[in-house]
Amino acid sequence: MPTEIPNYSRPNRNRRVILARRPNGIPQPADFALDDTEMPAVAEGEFLVRNIYLSVDPAQRGWASAEANYSAPVPLGGPMRGLAVGVVVQSRCAEVAEGEFLYGWFGWQDYAAVGLAAIIQRATAAVKLSAYAGLLGINGLTAYLGLTKLGRPQPGERVLVSTAAGSVGSLVGQVARNLGAMPIGLAGDDDKVEACTERYGYAAAYNYKTADWDAALAEGPPLDVYFDNVGGPILDCALRRMAPGGRIVQCGTASTASWTPPPTGPRNEREIMTRRLVWSGFVVFDHVADFAAASQALVDWLDGDRLTFDEDIAPGIEHAPGAIKALYDGENRGKKLIFIG
Amino acid sequence: MPTEIPNYSRPNRNRRVILARRPNGIPQPADFALDDTEMPAVAEGEFLVRNIYLSVDPAQRGWASAEANYSAPVPLGGPMRGLAVGVVVQSRCAEVAEGEFLYGWFGWQDYAAVGLAAIIQRATAAVKLSAYAGLLGINGLTAYLGLTKLGRPQPGERVLVSTAAGSVGSLVGQVARNLGAMPIGLAGDDDKVEACTERYGYAAAYNYKTADWDAALAEGPPLDVYFDNVGGPILDCALRRMAPGGRIVQCGTASTASWTPPPTGPRNEREIMTRRLVWSGFVVFDHVADFAAASQALVDWLDGDRLTFDEDIAPGIEHAPGAIKALYDGENRGKKLIFIG
Repeated sequence: MPTEIPNYSRPNRNRRVILARRPNGIPQPADFALDDTEMPAVAEGEFLVRNIYLSVDPAQRGWASAEANYSAPVPLGGPMRGLAVGVVVQSRCAEVAEGEFLYGWFGWQDYAAVGLAAIIQRATAAVKLSAYAGLLGINGLTAYLGLTKLGRPQPGERVLVSTAAGSVGSLVGQVARNLGAMPIGLAGDDDKVEACTERYGYAAAYNYKTADWDAALAEGPPLDVYFDNVGGPILDCALRRMAPGGRIVQCGTASTASWTPPPTGPRNEREIMTRRLVWSGFVVFDHVADFAAASQALVDWLDGDRLTFDEDIAPGIEHAPGAIKALYDGENRGKKLIFIG
Repeated sequence: MPTEIPNYSRPNRNRRVILARRPNGIPQPADFALDDTEMPAVAEGEFLVRNIYLSVDPAQRGWASAEANYSAPVPLGGPMRGLAVGVVVQSRCAEVAEGEFLYGWFGWQDYAAVGLAAIIQRATAAVKLSAYAGLLGINGLTAYLGLTKLGRPQPGERVLVSTAAGSVGSLVGQVARNLGAMPIGLAGDDDKVEACTERYGYAAAYNYKTADWDAALAEGPPLDVYFDNVGGPILDCALRRMAPGGRIVQCGTASTASWTPPPTGPRNEREIMTRRLVWSGFVVFDHVADFAAASQALVDWLDGDRLTFDEDIAPGIEHAPGAIKALYDGENRGKKLIFIG
């Protein structure tokens, strides 16, 4: 069992963060509304989760978008799709016990009546509860599996990471370092740049808004891996700094505010061909079979003081509507969570 | 020994196709000049090859370019870098016998004094001599290795191929077909489209200049593999028809006339990410260790009447200066060779 069990009281109603309007690009506070409904009914085979931490994830932008994606768009008028850590308060499912702490698809709301398919991880006392929504949530799993399965850094190789101080990037850097590679970070302000080198094990880091990082990279050996969370002009530059046979992991496209209309950029196919790059798209949910092994590796490093994971926790569900925009604005310091316990 | 030994006479001079001017984009006839020099001297460890077939390859555009590539630009004033099939007329190298027929880096000229590193394949009587500059040259090796190692089509999968009737594309289609996949071809005129379905085993083929191939593809299942020889707008469309986990093999960028200044196009990183594509660059010379196995597979299919390879042979070295442009203009019907034997 987790070591922290929050103490809270709450009216017997289900507060929800509703997607009120289809966002164009990054979801804005006004795209959401808060409402308050009856408690959800629990069908046979389901269980009722009371959420404690709502996870704020860059991927929610894609989930809320009307554009083609790897999942159907979040319906308007329903609770925002989101991951959360919660406790089971009622169960009609033999495989789930009341009192269990779970991480999964519980939505941005107080309560969710869901089935087994909604569970991503079951929490244990190995780490604090909030970590299941970050270090051992999709952020840590993405960093570990995206880098090890698609980036495949070898000892001594140079690994560039964008959003290097973020919830995914800060772990990509540390995973790379723990594997013997040399991570180089790009971040959007000087505090984050400092965190990269002081806290997250980066060999070097640059403020991409103010430093000529491309010139700095050009002075060193070429890049073997680029773990890309942003796309756009930074990607275009990084491609042209890759070594032959380099791997690009496309994990996010945060730098592009809207895909409607489709933005343009320099054609990159010649770089891919002449440098023999391998440019792969990563979505963590393709790798469910590897979650347990990845979690164990992360916990082992955490226990061995080889991993730091920062959290930025806002108290109260009223912080949810503005949270995705704040994330894209780079305001968070560590994994953004909403504590509603 | 090959079954055909050409009968020829030639003055004891070395005619050469010189790169006279640095091309911008596709090399034009005026970028070349013909000259005539002393016979090259053969140093210890070298051997003298008299060329019989000069190979005309799309890759020569890149070799002649001043831009960064996988090889240094061809020096101005020297013979154009090119592959050829020739016969050894003098040897000061223990591993090479006079009378041997070889395929390799012998340049666009009558004679080359070279060392072992210049050899790509040694010809045998298994197939006719010209095939070593095409089917068993970089074209066939590229088709076989690019498709099997990077495209990895599974039985029943849909494989789109651009320049589908070309020296590489016509083989990609047939390799895909022989592996049980369903090749779909794009070609630039109706004769080539007909050759795709009538000669090269394509399940379907479209004239990309006149047919709404994108709409036709949209009616069927998505694509699992795109073997791309052209880049540009066709690539942009194809990416948006890929199945999740689809593989793109970037083998050429023939549709872009010049990379100076860099052309622009729609940003593709979101497609890569959301569809979890794997987009890889292919250069055949990375795969030398696999040439023997690939050649054997191609010869087996040829012997089993499961492979057709067409050649378009121009007689006389005077055809060389215009040959690369003609190739990019789509004028050839099958593998373009210059017979100078």
